[in-house]
Amino acid sequence: MDYNSKKKKFISLKGNSGLHSPNIHSIIKEIPEIKVDVDACYLSNPYATELFLDYLKRDIINTGRINDMIGYYPSPNTEIAKPISKTLNIPSSNILVCNGAVEGIQAILNMLTGKLVIPIPTFSSYYEYCHNMLEPIYYNLAKERDYVLDLEEYAKFIHDKNINNVLIINPNNPTGSYINSSDIITFIEEHKHLDSIILDESFIHFASEDGNSNMQFNSIQGRINDFDNVFIVKSMAKDFGIAGLRCGYVLMRADHVRTCLSEGFLWNVNGIAEYFFELYGDKKFLLEYENHRKKYIADTLSFYTMLKELAGIKILPSNANFFLVEILNGSTSEDLTLKLLIEHNIYVRDCNDKIGLQGEYVRIASRTERENKMIYEALENSL
Amino acid sequence: MDYNSKKKKFISLKGNSGLHSPNIHSIIKEIPEIKVDVDACYLSNPYATELFLDYLKRDIINTGRINDMIGYYPSPNTEIAKPISKTLNIPSSNILVCNGAVEGIQAILNMLTGKLVIPIPTFSSYYEYCHNMLEPIYYNLAKERDYVLDLEEYAKFIHDKNINNVLIINPNNPTGSYINSSDIITFIEEHKHLDSIILDESFIHFASEDGNSNMQFNSIQGRINDFDNVFIVKSMAKDFGIAGLRCGYVLMRADHVRTCLSEGFLWNVNGIAEYFFELYGDKKFLLEYENHRKKYIADTLSFYTMLKELAGIKILPSNANFFLVEILNGSTSEDLTLKLLIEHNIYVRDCNDKIGLQGEYVRIASRTERENKMIYEALENSL
Repeated sequence: MDYNSKKKKFISLKGNSGLHSPNIHSIIKEIPEIKVDVDACYLSNPYATELFLDYLKRDIINTGRINDMIGYYPSPNTEIAKPISKTLNIPSSNILVCNGAVEGIQAILNMLTGKLVIPIPTFSSYYEYCHNMLEPIYYNLAKERDYVLDLEEYAKFIHDKNINNVLIINPNNPTGSYINSSDIITFIEEHKHLDSIILDESFIHFASEDGNSNMQFNSIQGRINDFDNVFIVKSMAKDFGIAGLRCGYVLMRADHVRTCLSEGFLWNVNGIAEYFFELYGDKKFLLEYENHRKKYIADTLSFYTMLKELAGIKILPSNANFFLVEILNGSTSEDLTLKLLIEHNIYVRDCNDKIGLQGEYVRIASRTERENKMIYEALENSL
Repeated sequence: MDYNSKKKKFISLKGNSGLHSPNIHSIIKEIPEIKVDVDACYLSNPYATELFLDYLKRDIINTGRINDMIGYYPSPNTEIAKPISKTLNIPSSNILVCNGAVEGIQAILNMLTGKLVIPIPTFSSYYEYCHNMLEPIYYNLAKERDYVLDLEEYAKFIHDKNINNVLIINPNNPTGSYINSSDIITFIEEHKHLDSIILDESFIHFASEDGNSNMQFNSIQGRINDFDNVFIVKSMAKDFGIAGLRCGYVLMRADHVRTCLSEGFLWNVNGIAEYFFELYGDKKFLLEYENHRKKYIADTLSFYTMLKELAGIKILPSNANFFLVEILNGSTSEDLTLKLLIEHNIYVRDCNDKIGLQGEYVRIASRTERENKMIYEALENSL
């Protein structure tokens, strides 16, 4: 099959995938002529995936515990919240365990009415899943400031437009831009009158404020009870590399958790995801994970250093595990994405469907050291 | 630990479990002093569990495919609907794939307003998850008719009370009572003016209308497009024995499916559940499953014959994979449940929290031939 036929097939597949890119399984299934060596569309820590798989094989598959995990009902939501509660040191009554963060986003949006301000570009579910009682108001992040959110200007916009619900994704996706936790806390403290502030910390494990000297990250999850109107969304897919399990949670006021549980969410976490959450409460696992997290951040930093040298593109500074890349050599993002995929078997995220971006952009995930090198070489050849 | 201490611990655990019984994992974890040899609380075909586990081990675990299923995102809802569409021979646009049937129940209830009539006793989620715009109206099934739903009287009640949303669970849980598909269809055709008829067929694989001569079951799932106001709920946990995976679906008008998808449900099916749905579209798997289904029904029928001989209890006729048992020897359902659990390690469902039952009842699931014999002997000793 020639380049143009593969191109046509991929464009048609993408057309059927809505605001999300087709996943690697769909590409392999629908266009077997396209090979994918590196999935740099998917934002996850591959070392963490390996760690979880090692545990799963040793503790669950080899022991036969998997039989019960599949054959029997999982524990109810409130039970699975317990190890999360232990690790975050917050009451489990503040935790809604979710079948992936997207379920949590849906649950929050269903509780809100009025206006929700959404800085764009960002993760599309926040505007896709607004219902007819919740109006999404777009706040354009400025290209000249690399799409970094300026909280002072944001506050002015919120005030002027009479907005009652606010979204902050930190670090943001697809930009990777990050706001220091102390600034977030100041913003929250100055906006206690709002109905809600949704803070999405799905990529927080990759962000550090110490210039990466010891790679600490500053989540405010432990402070959920200090802020009455705050919802914190947390995906586990990125940092722990387990998107297929569907694990996430929302931290919020206990009465909001009770409202959600009164409407369902009973057995919404599958048996193997329940095992993941057991590990999330297990200090030994978390210590091992910490090594994999730091190794991955180090690789991501080296990847950034490499990418910055390439001519014809601009790499935006990122505190996440991916880079938003502006294409400056005249090529479109679609052309580059297709060239990388079809000629080099490297799958990156074409951002041409992301509202709020001015220019031609792709998003490139950091993968393993070896894969990052492959991505770099493919880019070098394609630009 | 003595009988009374174990009893106290179990009663406290049950008190924390809301309207659902504590699952077997919780009992083992929280009260290690209690041993559970047979879980006759849990309604599933154990032979089907084994079949799925065989496939999973061969195709997914041994081949390493499990790594991608856990590491990468599953396919979106519309993609996973395809094998279901193939097997049921209906368009995939009529299918919302769910993270367990409970998610589907929640999705349906969220779309309805007004009054929902619920025949009781029944599965509690239907009244638990009614929101403040949907009023549950209870319709008491008559004890003197073994709690069988009389559709003519039901129609009269619906008319008299000006009801716009109707629930029928067929076979019903916890009674096991069944209505012929032709009567259901007549009822639906006479109630086209209603906003909705929710038909829950979660236990339909265990029901046959031919006196079990060849154990066929009569689902009306294939006719979803003939009925504009019908929602069909289907759990896969019972018939396929995979409650831990969280697999279910709702069949409904395509515009209702689109409404749901516009609000979320994007990646709500985990990677291993996606594999189950692949098998649900695979004729070879379904043929093997059919043998396990029939073997299990045969065992269930033998179990009924045995149970009927016991004095001091009445076994209600059932077309499902469980029996509602009225206790007539003066013992309470709690006493019998505790005796079976603590003295014989047999876990049955105490129905004393089920609204709509008059008397003392436990619900006993049919399990494997060997386990059914253990249940029978324990009952014989306890009554």
